[in-house]
Amino acid sequence: MASGVYQLSAVKLFLTDVDGCLTDGALYYTPEGEAMKRFCVYDGMGLVRLREAGIPCGILTSEKSSIVKARAEKLHVEYLYLGVGSKEFKGGLSKLEAAKRICAKMKISLDDVCYVGDDLNDIDLLQAVGYPCCPPNARVEVRALPNIRVLHTPGGQGAIREIADAILRK
Amino acid sequence: MASGVYQLSAVKLFLTDVDGCLTDGALYYTPEGEAMKRFCVYDGMGLVRLREAGIPCGILTSEKSSIVKARAEKLHVEYLYLGVGSKEFKGGLSKLEAAKRICAKMKISLDDVCYVGDDLNDIDLLQAVGYPCCPPNARVEVRALPNIRVLHTPGGQGAIREIADAILRK
Amino acid sequence: MASGVYQLSAVKLFLTDVDGCLTDGALYYTPEGEAMKRFCVYDGMGLVRLREAGIPCGILTSEKSSIVKARAEKLHVEYLYLGVGSKEFKGGLSKLEAAKRICAKMKISLDDVCYVGDDLNDIDLLQAVGYPCCPPNARVEVRALPNIRVLHTPGGQGAIREIADAILRK
Amino acid sequence: MASGVYQLSAVKLFLTDVDGCLTDGALYYTPEGEAMKRFCVYDGMGLVRLREAGIPCGILTSEKSSIVKARAEKLHVEYLYLGVGSKEFKGGLSKLEAAKRICAKMKISLDDVCYVGDDLNDIDLLQAVGYPCCPPNARVEVRALPNIRVLHTPGGQGAIREIADAILRK
Repeated sequence: MASGVYQLSAVKLFLTDVDGCLTDGALYYTPEGEAMKRFCVYDGMGLVRLREAGIPCGILTSEKSSIVKARAEKLHVEYLYLGVGSKEFKGGLSKLEAAKRICAKMKISLDDVCYVGDDLNDIDLLQAVGYPCCPPNARVEVRALPNIRVLHTPGGQGAIREIADAILRK
Repeated sequence: MASGVYQLSAVKLFLTDVDGCLTDGALYYTPEGEAMKRFCVYDGMGLVRLREAGIPCGILTSEKSSIVKARAEKLHVEYLYLGVGSKEFKGGLSKLEAAKRICAKMKISLDDVCYVGDDLNDIDLLQAVGYPCCPPNARVEVRALPNIRVLHTPGGQGAIREIADAILRK
Repeated sequence: MASGVYQLSAVKLFLTDVDGCLTDGALYYTPEGEAMKRFCVYDGMGLVRLREAGIPCGILTSEKSSIVKARAEKLHVEYLYLGVGSKEFKGGLSKLEAAKRICAKMKISLDDVCYVGDDLNDIDLLQAVGYPCCPPNARVEVRALPNIRVLHTPGGQGAIREIADAILRK
Repeated sequence: MASGVYQLSAVKLFLTDVDGCLTDGALYYTPEGEAMKRFCVYDGMGLVRLREAGIPCGILTSEKSSIVKARAEKLHVEYLYLGVGSKEFKGGLSKLEAAKRICAKMKISLDDVCYVGDDLNDIDLLQAVGYPCCPPNARVEVRALPNIRVLHTPGGQGAIREIADAILRK
């Protein structure tokens, strides 16, 4: 498995996908559709610690999910983009465009960004940022990206905490 | 463990069972009965990609489950048969009969069909299709079927995505 | 790990505990208390097949759980005893007494009974029946009982199906 | 991995954290926020047995969670402190201060206390008690504490039962 060789020397913004990264990819359905997601307490503390260390965090997901919104609010995440990079919501932003907007606002470059993604619709952004990461459960096309750091901890079990801790130890 | 030796050269229709294939076999009960199922985000993208590649998808399950209906609608699955192959719903179709109906509509043969099933009530249909598959958690009687392809990924963790990717790489 | 050496030659009644046997021991709580249990589709078909083969099934649990009642009704289980063997419900039956009542009704002996249990409050009954079983996740005091058959499949992942299949193959 | 070398000779009070210790760290979210936690039946019986043996139990958590309250009430836990050690609730007690209050009430010393914790905000209390424990899924900073006993069973799968049984065997 390829593993990112870069040093986490100057991450200025931390972004992550949701399903498979902040969760284990499980979608809990009732007759009304998706009703619940399973997050991990360790990831929550990872995002809180990044923020406290002066590194803003953002969540990007292709779903317009009020579940994700609730989790983002609990964690006081600075940036939240729902419905990005989805063919369902035509005319919407791609994940890459959303990340560029945040960078413009922060006057930083994509080179300063760490992004965690796990599936095909994350590849554009993963290829554009300076610090691309994925959990070990990411799709093979993602794990094979040049320069990507494949985390040891699966999504939903602390993958985000693992990279957050690594950034904070830099 | 037996493994299908066939090439996925000409799959024209993709069908799958639900419990144990699109899920890990878990049934979440409240006092009102089954309230929730746990699907996997990777499988969802697998079905969407098959459809985009011109291969229609269908879901066949012995339960008359409105949870499955909600998931099928989200994924815009072409064919959905609830309550097939169940002794509970007398006079109903078997899974094999349901598959034959879809084939007649599409003017294709069962030889052109890939079906994923995991338990005894899937055996008739698995023996009739050209591309029979099962997840590794399938019952031993299913895993031992001649010509069956035993997937590496367990149900509910991306089994359907694994076979969808293999079909698309054909 | 000890393993039952008996032959399943003449099981006439199948009884099982719930938490840890028909589930993985998980208790899903909301602010209102336990709201949900996670059952397994494979166990369901195991119990249905036993019943179809003329072997009645029963569920014994120390909780007065309407969740268990819903699952038992779905599976048309013949015997259901809630709140047995619990100090919470004083004056109630023990699990052993409940099993004796069923045996009296069926005019069979405890020697003809297969029981699956996993914790300290199952030991009395496990020691009294002819065919004692436990899942591999059972407490060490249970796994060490003389003559007990330690199943290979964990509770909630098909433990009950494993023993049901073994009984039906006898 | 470091492992506590102390004997459990005189535990007089048992305290535990919730997320990652009494659960596997999973947080189940709906659009309304956290809606559900997953506890383990084995831990429940562990706490009940400790109480019956004359060792009171307490639960300390940084969240003001009514889910935890429901679980604590079901188990008749003697001490329950919600919202301790959290920056969210300013002016509140730390976990260490909460433990000291219980000790004062019981007229015992922190040396007599067994505490199970898994994350950074548990370290102060873990360093102060006589019998510090953590599940194997605890953060590395916790697992590396001097004198800590690293349990074999993960949180939410019976970690609390493991240490409760060990205390009762003392």
